[in-house]
Amino acid sequence: MDMQPPPFAAATATPAPAPALPIYRRLAEHYLSAIQSGTLAPGDRMPSVRDLMRQHHVSLSTALQTLRHLEEGGWLEARPRSGYFVRQPRRAAIRPVGEPNVLAPLDPAQYVGIHEQVSDFIARRQLQAPAIDLSGMSCAPELYAVEALKNAAIRALREQPSLLTSPMPINGNVTFRQVVARRALNAGIRIGADDVVVTHGCIEALNLALRAVAQAGDTIAVESPTYFGLLQTLESLGMRALEIPTSPQTGISIEALELAIQTYGNIKAVVVVPTLQNPLGCIMPDSHKERLVALCERCAVPLIEDDAYSELADGDVAPSAAKVWDRSGNVIYCASLNKVLAPGMRLGWMTSGKWHERVKMLKFAYTRANEEWTQITAANYMGSPAYDRHLRRLRGNLKEQREQMAEAIAGYFPSETRLSVPDGGVGLWVELPRGLSSKAVFAAALDQGIGVSPGVIFSNSDRFDHYLRLCCGKPFTHELDQALRKLGGIVERLPG
Amino acid sequence: MDMQPPPFAAATATPAPAPALPIYRRLAEHYLSAIQSGTLAPGDRMPSVRDLMRQHHVSLSTALQTLRHLEEGGWLEARPRSGYFVRQPRRAAIRPVGEPNVLAPLDPAQYVGIHEQVSDFIARRQLQAPAIDLSGMSCAPELYAVEALKNAAIRALREQPSLLTSPMPINGNVTFRQVVARRALNAGIRIGADDVVVTHGCIEALNLALRAVAQAGDTIAVESPTYFGLLQTLESLGMRALEIPTSPQTGISIEALELAIQTYGNIKAVVVVPTLQNPLGCIMPDSHKERLVALCERCAVPLIEDDAYSELADGDVAPSAAKVWDRSGNVIYCASLNKVLAPGMRLGWMTSGKWHERVKMLKFAYTRANEEWTQITAANYMGSPAYDRHLRRLRGNLKEQREQMAEAIAGYFPSETRLSVPDGGVGLWVELPRGLSSKAVFAAALDQGIGVSPGVIFSNSDRFDHYLRLCCGKPFTHELDQALRKLGGIVERLPG
Repeated sequence: MDMQPPPFAAATATPAPAPALPIYRRLAEHYLSAIQSGTLAPGDRMPSVRDLMRQHHVSLSTALQTLRHLEEGGWLEARPRSGYFVRQPRRAAIRPVGEPNVLAPLDPAQYVGIHEQVSDFIARRQLQAPAIDLSGMSCAPELYAVEALKNAAIRALREQPSLLTSPMPINGNVTFRQVVARRALNAGIRIGADDVVVTHGCIEALNLALRAVAQAGDTIAVESPTYFGLLQTLESLGMRALEIPTSPQTGISIEALELAIQTYGNIKAVVVVPTLQNPLGCIMPDSHKERLVALCERCAVPLIEDDAYSELADGDVAPSAAKVWDRSGNVIYCASLNKVLAPGMRLGWMTSGKWHERVKMLKFAYTRANEEWTQITAANYMGSPAYDRHLRRLRGNLKEQREQMAEAIAGYFPSETRLSVPDGGVGLWVELPRGLSSKAVFAAALDQGIGVSPGVIFSNSDRFDHYLRLCCGKPFTHELDQALRKLGGIVERLPG
Repeated sequence: MDMQPPPFAAATATPAPAPALPIYRRLAEHYLSAIQSGTLAPGDRMPSVRDLMRQHHVSLSTALQTLRHLEEGGWLEARPRSGYFVRQPRRAAIRPVGEPNVLAPLDPAQYVGIHEQVSDFIARRQLQAPAIDLSGMSCAPELYAVEALKNAAIRALREQPSLLTSPMPINGNVTFRQVVARRALNAGIRIGADDVVVTHGCIEALNLALRAVAQAGDTIAVESPTYFGLLQTLESLGMRALEIPTSPQTGISIEALELAIQTYGNIKAVVVVPTLQNPLGCIMPDSHKERLVALCERCAVPLIEDDAYSELADGDVAPSAAKVWDRSGNVIYCASLNKVLAPGMRLGWMTSGKWHERVKMLKFAYTRANEEWTQITAANYMGSPAYDRHLRRLRGNLKEQREQMAEAIAGYFPSETRLSVPDGGVGLWVELPRGLSSKAVFAAALDQGIGVSPGVIFSNSDRFDHYLRLCCGKPFTHELDQALRKLGGIVERLPG
C-alpha cells in the first residue's frame, strides 16, 4: 500500500476539494475512490490507524472515524488482531432483476384504476409515520444547498421588495427561462428562453403534454413498470394506459412498442423516462433513443419525454435527452428541478416542439404563470458556479448511498433477491424472492417503522407485485442499516 | 362650515389613523368623508387655505395640497376669487348600464372559441406596453403590505432554513389551511382545515371544480357577461358555455337559469361570481343567493361559486357567500388571495362539498401540493391583526380610486356613456355610446399609450362589444386623469 498522502489535515494550506465535509469524510472518500478504481483491491490490507495519522497528519479520532465510516459503508471488514481489509462487495454477487418477456401478448389498453390503491398506501404511511421512510424519491434536505438557496431567496426579496405584491409576467420570469435554456445544453438540447414553459414540477408538465396531444378515452403507451404518478395522471384525465415491456437494462422495448403501434393504430402518445427510469433506474442507450424518436416520428405518434433525473446520473457528463434526435418537433420534453435543485420549490419546465402554443394556452388556462419569487431564487442560484459544485457533490453522495444500500440489501436479504444497481438517481428496484407480495411486505415493514414503495403500484396490472422500490436519497446511517436488516428479515420470513 | 378640527399636524401626540399616508392625504380623507356622508353638501364652501392652516395646525403647502388633491379627485371646484366649493358629483348624473333582456331566447350552448382573440389582445398590449394600463384587475403593488409580507417571507426562511429543500406535506401546509378556514367565517362559511384544498390561484380551483363535475363536451351555465379567463378555461377543457343573462344590479337571472336547466336538461354545472361579479361589479342580494343554491340543489346541478373579490366589498362586513345556504354539499366554493393579499403569491383555495375527495385527487394528479414557503408566509401575515388593518385600508383606497375614476369618466366621456359604480372591487364596466366597438376603442387607446379590456372578450358572442372594463386598482394620479380624458376623446370621436 503506497498511496500519495493527500493534504487532509486541518492545518494544510492547499484548498480542500470539498470544504463542506468533515476531514474524516474527505479522507474516507479518498480511499473509497481508490477502492472503486481498483487501486485497492478486495483482500488488500488498509493502512493502520497509526499509518493514517502519520501519512495524512490527522488525529487518532479522525483516523478511527475514517476506518469506521468505510466499514459501515461495507467497504472494509475488520479482522481480529489483523486490522482492516478491503471487502469483496456483496452486491457484486447479487443477480440483476429479470428481463421482461417481450414476446408475451400485451395487456389490452385499459382505463387506469390505481389512485385509490396509491392513496391507501400513502394514507397508511402517513398515519403510521415510519421512522425510516424509503418510499419517496426525494433526497434528504441536507443534500441540497440549504444555506445558499435560503440566501438567494432572501436576496431576491431584498432586491425586489414588491416581488410578492406585483402581478407576474404572463409567461413566467425570463431570466429563469434563460438559465433553464442554457442548462438544457447539458442534455444536448438547443432552445431559447421563449421555448420554455415553466410549470409546477414535472407533473404539471406531463399533464400539459398529455392534454396537448390527447383527450379522455385516448390510449397512451407507457413503460411497464412506470411511475405510479403518471398512472394517476392518466386516470385523472380519463385516458387509457397501454403498458409496453421495459428492460431494466435498456428501457422500453422498441420492438414491442412498434408492434403495439401497428396493432392498435390509435395510440395518441408514448411517455418514456429514457434516463434513470422510475422505478427501474435504467438508462436507455443513445442508439435506442434515436430509434425511438425515429419510430414515433414515422408513425406520427407524439413522444413525451420525462427527464426529471438525468442530472443525477453518475459522472460529469449527463446522458443525452431523446429530444436531441428530434428533427420535427414531435418530442415534448418535460424536466424538473425537484430532485436536483430543491424539492420544496416545485419547479418544472418543458419545451414542446410543435405543440408549444397549445401547451402555453393550456398552462395559462389552468394555473397561469408560476410565482416569480421561486423562479428568481432558482435563477440566482443556478446561474452561479456553486450550482455545478452542488450537483457534483449530490451525485457523489447519491452514488455512495446507493452502493451502501445495495451492499446492505445484498447482505441482509435472502439470496434469491435480485437487484440492479443503477448508474445514478435515488431509487433501487428490488425483485423479491418466491413471488412474495409487495403488499404484504409493505404492511409488515410499516408495522416495524419502515416505509417502502410496493411494486404493485407501478403498473395497472399486478405484474410487479413481487418488487419493491427503495429510496437511497438519505445518508446511510446505522439506523438505515438496521432498518434494511429488519426488512431483509421480513422478506426472509414472510410466506411466498 | 364648522367641523371639529382633527389632529393632523405632524407635532400631534394623538395616534394618527393611517400613519402610512402623508398629512395632506389624511386631511383630504377627513373632508372626503364629510362630503360622502353629506355633512358637506354640493355647493357648500370649503374652508379657505388660511382656515385649514389655523384649524388643523398644518403648513401652507399642506393646506394647498389638500385642496388640490380634492379638486383633482373631482370633489371640489375652484371658483375665481371665491375659493373652493363642494361639487355636485358628475358621476351622480351618469346612467347605470342597461339591464339584459331576460326574455330573449338564449344563444345555444356552444364550444368556446375565445382564446385566440384574448391572446391577441394581450400580445398587442404587451408589445406596445401602454404607459397607463387599465386592462388588468390587480391593484398597484404599493396598495399591499409590501414590507410586512417581505418580512414574513424572510422570517419563514430563517425559522425553517430547509423549507425550500424539503418535500412538501401532501395536502399543503396545515397552519395555512387553518388560517384560511378561520377567515372563511367572515363570508359565513364554517369549515375546518381538512376541508380546504390550496390551489395556484382561483383559476386552478375553477379548473378543478369543473373537472370534478363535468367533462369535455358537457354544457356549463355561466353568467353573461363573464370573466374571459373562465371562458378560456372552458375552451381548454373542451366544455360548452351556455350564457345566462345577468343583471348589472343583482347578478345572474335565476328565472332565465331555471328555464335553461329545464329546457336543456344536460347542464352539468353553473359557475357564478355572486359578489363583485367580473366584469359587472354587481353583488347578488342574499335572497337571490338562497334561491340560486336551492334551485341548483333541486335540479341536482352543481353550483361553482367564484368568490375572489368579496373581501374587497366596501364596508367592514363582507357579503355572505352563496355557500352559506348550501345544505347538501352541492356548492364548490373557490376563493383567491391574489386580489386581497398579494398578486405575486398566486394563492387560491377551495372547499368542495361532496366532491372534496375527487378534487383532492385531481389536484394531486395535476400539480401536487402548493409550495409551503408561500403558504407559511401568508399564514404568518394573515394570522396577525395587521392583515385586517391592511384590508380596511385597501378597501378605503379602492373606494376612493373607484369614485375618482367614475367621476373622471362622467366628466370626460360623451353623455350617452353608461356606468354602474360598484360597491367594491377593482373594476368599472362602461357601456359605450352609439354601439361603439370595444375593439376599435382598444386599438385607438393602445396607440395613445392606454390599455383597456375590450368588452367583446367577456362573452362567446359579440353581445358586449360596446363595453369596456377599466381597472381602478391604481392610485388616481394626474397621468391617470389625463389618460381618461384622452380615452373620453377617443370614444367621442370614433365613428359608431
